[in-house]
Amino acid sequence: MPNPTAAMLVIGDEILSGRTRDSNLHHLARELSGAGIDLREARVVGDRHRAIVLALRALSVTHDHVFTSGGIGPTHDDITADAVAEAMGVAISHNPEALARLEVHYRQQGRPFNEARRRMARIPDGATLIDNPISAAPGFTIGNVHVLAGVPTIFEAMLASVLPLLTGGTPLLSQTLQVNRGEGEVAEAFGRLAAEFPDLSMGSYPFAHQGAIGTNLVIRGTDRARLAEAMMRLTRLFG
Amino acid sequence: MPNPTAAMLVIGDEILSGRTRDSNLHHLARELSGAGIDLREARVVGDRHRAIVLALRALSVTHDHVFTSGGIGPTHDDITADAVAEAMGVAISHNPEALARLEVHYRQQGRPFNEARRRMARIPDGATLIDNPISAAPGFTIGNVHVLAGVPTIFEAMLASVLPLLTGGTPLLSQTLQVNRGEGEVAEAFGRLAAEFPDLSMGSYPFAHQGAIGTNLVIRGTDRARLAEAMMRLTRLFG
Repeated sequence: MPNPTAAMLVIGDEILSGRTRDSNLHHLARELSGAGIDLREARVVGDRHRAIVLALRALSVTHDHVFTSGGIGPTHDDITADAVAEAMGVAISHNPEALARLEVHYRQQGRPFNEARRRMARIPDGATLIDNPISAAPGFTIGNVHVLAGVPTIFEAMLASVLPLLTGGTPLLSQTLQVNRGEGEVAEAFGRLAAEFPDLSMGSYPFAHQGAIGTNLVIRGTDRARLAEAMMRLTRLFG
Repeated sequence: MPNPTAAMLVIGDEILSGRTRDSNLHHLARELSGAGIDLREARVVGDRHRAIVLALRALSVTHDHVFTSGGIGPTHDDITADAVAEAMGVAISHNPEALARLEVHYRQQGRPFNEARRRMARIPDGATLIDNPISAAPGFTIGNVHVLAGVPTIFEAMLASVLPLLTGGTPLLSQTLQVNRGEGEVAEAFGRLAAEFPDLSMGSYPFAHQGAIGTNLVIRGTDRARLAEAMMRLTRLFG
């Protein structure tokens, strides 16, 4: 059976304006590879309702899972939950369990649980909450969409709690052979090898380090034996 | 007149598998902000012909410019040029000027100018070349699509040569006020201020540093006077 597929939607003006460098995509990519879920596409959109809705609709019908990051805080630019509700065709309201968690959190902190903070309990109807062990405000899963916070420590904690609940596939394995030659000198034979192993993905990544150039030849796949066979052939060619 | 808009398409299995952390999006975002070109969306797809073609078509009809990164090297997984040609509806062939540049480069390096390296001169018909001062193999512009290398140093050099040729707009200006309060405590007044300045974009970004929490309140816009007015109001509220 092929591995489940996934897409990511990064939400936030701060990424597209260059203020903030996204790190959640890279983290998600590594975690999904390990879980045997194929990340096929990622998109980044700003804090614009229509753009979020359209991207969510496009990604959720074409992938088994969609992970979003960003836009679930207490301020006016946090519009992800409303956009997710519209994209999934459900209503949105204050979730009693989310309200209860936030109330406890702010009481313990001695900070006011005001209207803005209550906003973080607005969750699409029918969603399941995702724990936030850092700042209480939960993420949520509705249908095949998993809505996580944008702050990397919270994104990572939420992903750690949602990922074990998903049915994964065979982890993506990867092996690398580093050669001291330019890409153009290994390309032909490497391409022939790749054509012989259509079930594996082979990529080449040139590098320059202290004046020396070289290429990392990477083979990825889910079948350990096939990967070993291809690596043996690769090593014979260029090792 | 509104600023021109742009989208980015990052191409490469290595980003989606988690092998490589993309840094070109962040660089492009900063450069475009400075040039007054609004980056509205970014997508990441793997080395798959159909996915690249569909993304390029979608992005190029809805934005003034599309910038791509990755997939223009000499190996079998470098399929960007062919996908761009198909998306733009033109043929692709060995570009004489690109061949000439590559031939000189490899002669100077004393390395063979073989078939794989000649592949890097395959450029969609009608495209304009973009200089590559590092490893010679050019990028290109066709229609409103600018095709750049994935290696960050080369991506940055290519962008530096193409960006001055584009008609920019008013640079996006940005100012930040850091406050020692949680997002939830500034959200209400900050949201009211944002509603008063619909021509500006206001975002709030919480942080935790050595046990202290706080929020960066960021105002972005192209009109210096309006930005100054909003910042004065913001400082009066929370400064």
